[in-house]
Amino acid sequence: MTNIAFIGLGIMGNPMAVHLANAGHTVAGLDRSPERSAALVAAGGRAASSLADAVKGADVICVMVPDSPDVQDVLEGENGVFQLAETGALIIDFSSIRPDVTQQLAEQAQALGFRLLDAPVSGGEAGAKNAALSIMVGGAEDDFAAAKPLFDVVGKTVVHVGPSGSGQTVKAANQLIVAANIQAVSEAVVFLEAYGVDTKAALEVLGGGLAGSTVLNQKKENMLSRSFEPGFRIDLHHKDMGIVTAAAREAGVVVPLGALVAQLVASARANGDGGLDHSALLRGVERLSGLEPANGQAG
Amino acid sequence: MTNIAFIGLGIMGNPMAVHLANAGHTVAGLDRSPERSAALVAAGGRAASSLADAVKGADVICVMVPDSPDVQDVLEGENGVFQLAETGALIIDFSSIRPDVTQQLAEQAQALGFRLLDAPVSGGEAGAKNAALSIMVGGAEDDFAAAKPLFDVVGKTVVHVGPSGSGQTVKAANQLIVAANIQAVSEAVVFLEAYGVDTKAALEVLGGGLAGSTVLNQKKENMLSRSFEPGFRIDLHHKDMGIVTAAAREAGVVVPLGALVAQLVASARANGDGGLDHSALLRGVERLSGLEPANGQAG
Amino acid sequence: MTNIAFIGLGIMGNPMAVHLANAGHTVAGLDRSPERSAALVAAGGRAASSLADAVKGADVICVMVPDSPDVQDVLEGENGVFQLAETGALIIDFSSIRPDVTQQLAEQAQALGFRLLDAPVSGGEAGAKNAALSIMVGGAEDDFAAAKPLFDVVGKTVVHVGPSGSGQTVKAANQLIVAANIQAVSEAVVFLEAYGVDTKAALEVLGGGLAGSTVLNQKKENMLSRSFEPGFRIDLHHKDMGIVTAAAREAGVVVPLGALVAQLVASARANGDGGLDHSALLRGVERLSGLEPANGQAG
Amino acid sequence: MTNIAFIGLGIMGNPMAVHLANAGHTVAGLDRSPERSAALVAAGGRAASSLADAVKGADVICVMVPDSPDVQDVLEGENGVFQLAETGALIIDFSSIRPDVTQQLAEQAQALGFRLLDAPVSGGEAGAKNAALSIMVGGAEDDFAAAKPLFDVVGKTVVHVGPSGSGQTVKAANQLIVAANIQAVSEAVVFLEAYGVDTKAALEVLGGGLAGSTVLNQKKENMLSRSFEPGFRIDLHHKDMGIVTAAAREAGVVVPLGALVAQLVASARANGDGGLDHSALLRGVERLSGLEPANGQAG
Repeated sequence: MTNIAFIGLGIMGNPMAVHLANAGHTVAGLDRSPERSAALVAAGGRAASSLADAVKGADVICVMVPDSPDVQDVLEGENGVFQLAETGALIIDFSSIRPDVTQQLAEQAQALGFRLLDAPVSGGEAGAKNAALSIMVGGAEDDFAAAKPLFDVVGKTVVHVGPSGSGQTVKAANQLIVAANIQAVSEAVVFLEAYGVDTKAALEVLGGGLAGSTVLNQKKENMLSRSFEPGFRIDLHHKDMGIVTAAAREAGVVVPLGALVAQLVASARANGDGGLDHSALLRGVERLSGLEPANGQAG
Repeated sequence: MTNIAFIGLGIMGNPMAVHLANAGHTVAGLDRSPERSAALVAAGGRAASSLADAVKGADVICVMVPDSPDVQDVLEGENGVFQLAETGALIIDFSSIRPDVTQQLAEQAQALGFRLLDAPVSGGEAGAKNAALSIMVGGAEDDFAAAKPLFDVVGKTVVHVGPSGSGQTVKAANQLIVAANIQAVSEAVVFLEAYGVDTKAALEVLGGGLAGSTVLNQKKENMLSRSFEPGFRIDLHHKDMGIVTAAAREAGVVVPLGALVAQLVASARANGDGGLDHSALLRGVERLSGLEPANGQAG
Repeated sequence: MTNIAFIGLGIMGNPMAVHLANAGHTVAGLDRSPERSAALVAAGGRAASSLADAVKGADVICVMVPDSPDVQDVLEGENGVFQLAETGALIIDFSSIRPDVTQQLAEQAQALGFRLLDAPVSGGEAGAKNAALSIMVGGAEDDFAAAKPLFDVVGKTVVHVGPSGSGQTVKAANQLIVAANIQAVSEAVVFLEAYGVDTKAALEVLGGGLAGSTVLNQKKENMLSRSFEPGFRIDLHHKDMGIVTAAAREAGVVVPLGALVAQLVASARANGDGGLDHSALLRGVERLSGLEPANGQAG
Repeated sequence: MTNIAFIGLGIMGNPMAVHLANAGHTVAGLDRSPERSAALVAAGGRAASSLADAVKGADVICVMVPDSPDVQDVLEGENGVFQLAETGALIIDFSSIRPDVTQQLAEQAQALGFRLLDAPVSGGEAGAKNAALSIMVGGAEDDFAAAKPLFDVVGKTVVHVGPSGSGQTVKAANQLIVAANIQAVSEAVVFLEAYGVDTKAALEVLGGGLAGSTVLNQKKENMLSRSFEPGFRIDLHHKDMGIVTAAAREAGVVVPLGALVAQLVASARANGDGGLDHSALLRGVERLSGLEPANGQAG
């Protein structure tokens, strides 16, 4: 049994904190919207009243917030974790942020006597609810070993991929592949519909061959029905494409497909689809092809 | 028990013909390289001495050859199937060719009293050997029903996707998705290596999340070891990208990702990688990034 | 003084035929829309009643029609030039068509005792009206020499670029550069407007530096005022991008920018802008960026 | 007659400072490499021994250094212009840097009693030598009016494009157009060579039509002879493409062509061509097309 503070109870953080409580750990949850603690409380956790309250006595501090500045705010901000938490605490950052920010935070954490793992996840809302996330972990080997039992509570594929920042690097690669695959499937769907093929049957047979993917399995219903309730929002994928293209540039790696997809994600956002699931990249293919996109929830 | 002629005993056709013979059918095989009939003969089939010999008495004529002109040659060429086969025969074209060529051939076949299904496959050499192909079938419903038992001998996911030509259209979409996904995974691999991440571990965890795909499962070993023995050759994927971009243009569907990937496949070919497996698109990312590509078999 | 038949009196052909008549040549014009001969007749030419009438006694036969099939129809069709014209006539094809079609027609022409030059032009409606066209000529050296005085009547920059088909190849390259430059300027304009820069002043200063171009000079007013009356229609540029991307593919030359621009031109057409001037590619950048494109004439 | 300090006497700054001295102004030059002051001294200027020495008594301080951090260092660094210059001095920053950095520096300048214009230039080494630069100026109207006589000494097209930062924004747009046009011309050249056209003649005729541009005029010799001595280095254009793609992203403007060209510039750099003139993008098209690029100076 571990004393856990869980900062950030959104679409992803909420079910993760609940799983940890259900597994018998003592979990104090904190979110800007206090009503989000309800599920955690129902599972036996408690709603912290402040960050100071949340991290008091916590051996492990989990963070699951949207972007780099949010993590910086939670950790190194005034009245943040670095000021308030007990020395020696293990900080697990599940957020998807810039690898260089992670590395700076990890150095700072170490200097202050904390341990920090970057542990971004893949698998979406479904993966979080089913405790079936992929977790890509960067940091020290023994910190990973210490955190592994907790990772196993919320994830199915848990892998230590390298030193601090590596988890974020792998997550960036993940987002490149996912966006490219969604775009490719979207182009295929509009192409098939233009030829009057039985698209539902076609996606079934495509899924059975080399074109098969988790994207195709999980998103084909969204695409066929033009129902783009998130899921994973285009706004967040836009943020992530910024990370991956900047990091590739920094490393001198040329990613023509990644760069083009980043533009198409940006276009989706510019067209008001930022709040839709990323499978709504399909709507961009329709716009390019002169087809009036069927309205999604936020369109 | 069906009398079957099987024209084209290459990497794909050979195991397919063998499966049909093993299933108890009478199979006469024909290939420009007669020694390729050995496996079929060992499985109880026979090596035909000519097309006339192959199609004599055949109820079903299977064709598995590389490109549109090859199929045209086999079917409508002098001393071709349309001249020599018995009226009423069912022709199954497993080749991946242009949808418009398929439609023309189907019309011609019907006028001459034949029935023609386009039935391109996905799954590669492994799929052919394991009788686990995805088969996307275009043509008349009752012809599909008649051929279904034979399809089930060589395939796992067998779907009738629409009228004549639809199989080829779906195959074109398949090739767009596959090439884009290989390219995206390739960019991710070079990116991860540039950051010194444990790439093998990274691909494992990527495979468990939303980035997971059949491409990632089947091709990651090739990529990690830079071992690009085909498999499915870049030369053939280049042909297929020509089909999909031309068909998209014809239909007024805009496929920016498909068009860019088509250029990158063309670049692989122009750089002498045409005989390598399509996972060798990785080498193109290395070239763009100024990394000397490790030599593949044909590189 | 030369006896000239001029087939095709559209936006380009009309002023060219008039210039030839004004220069003292005997010009018989023919167009599907007979009223288009008015300007030529006013300039001292005559309106032919049929192709047979037009080419009777003609030493030189000029052709200026939209696409490859149109040229094929005029030349090798039933009651076409190859049937009706006097042996030895010099055929000058000003149309922009596929280089391979030109080569086939030239071979046929030679076999029948005709001489054929491919002489596509650049410079647009303004160039045609001002007799300031660039003319890129493929064919035999002595045929070029014979036609040079006529070229000089309608063009300013007249260059023999190689054997039969070379003119079309150069025109294809021309269209690649022009479309890419229009797209780049369009992206720049939307970018500048987003930042609230004085865009009119900006385009003036851009024109004075390394970004300067004929496109910028001729099209900036269209772009600033969103007034896209053709000029050169997107439908025709779409046809040309098909020629250049197919020819590049055939030659194994990789043109990533060309291929992407071809998709964006196709998108303009799919969005109903085919009848607008090609500077309306700007509207595509607006669409991608979520800005309601101001209506052009045909939008 | 104005007292001018000129900081940065490289390829561009050197001839600009000389022109100002030749026009009768009192010019004190400073560069990290003191020998670069020779031409200025020969023209009647003087070599300053330090920044303090240079800016002492200067009414106008010109800056022409490579990148954002260099300008920040010169202006706001310890012993920088903001510390040492006389209050009220007019600072003209000719460097090409990030628009947001310019805006921050301008605010700081104003707070300290200085006036700052951003005045990046286009036209390259030739433009600097011939006093024929395009200068795109951002800042206050009256500061522009005050600086106009000096701009007219070094430039031919001098335009005030908006408030502080606007000059940099226009320069970013300039670099997008220039890179795209170089890439397009490069693709055209490799395409023409593949077809055996007389490329020199072809570029002449292309220059006379709608494909004509300053890039084509100034760079065609480099391209035909594969002689890529800078000129404007790919390393610097790479920096600029980073500025334009980031600024477009920030503004929500989608620039697919710009983003692709940025990748191709990055690829040139990754392949060791960073020190070559930007016309060496041609080498990238050759690499993509499997042609061994002829060696440039730095290749």
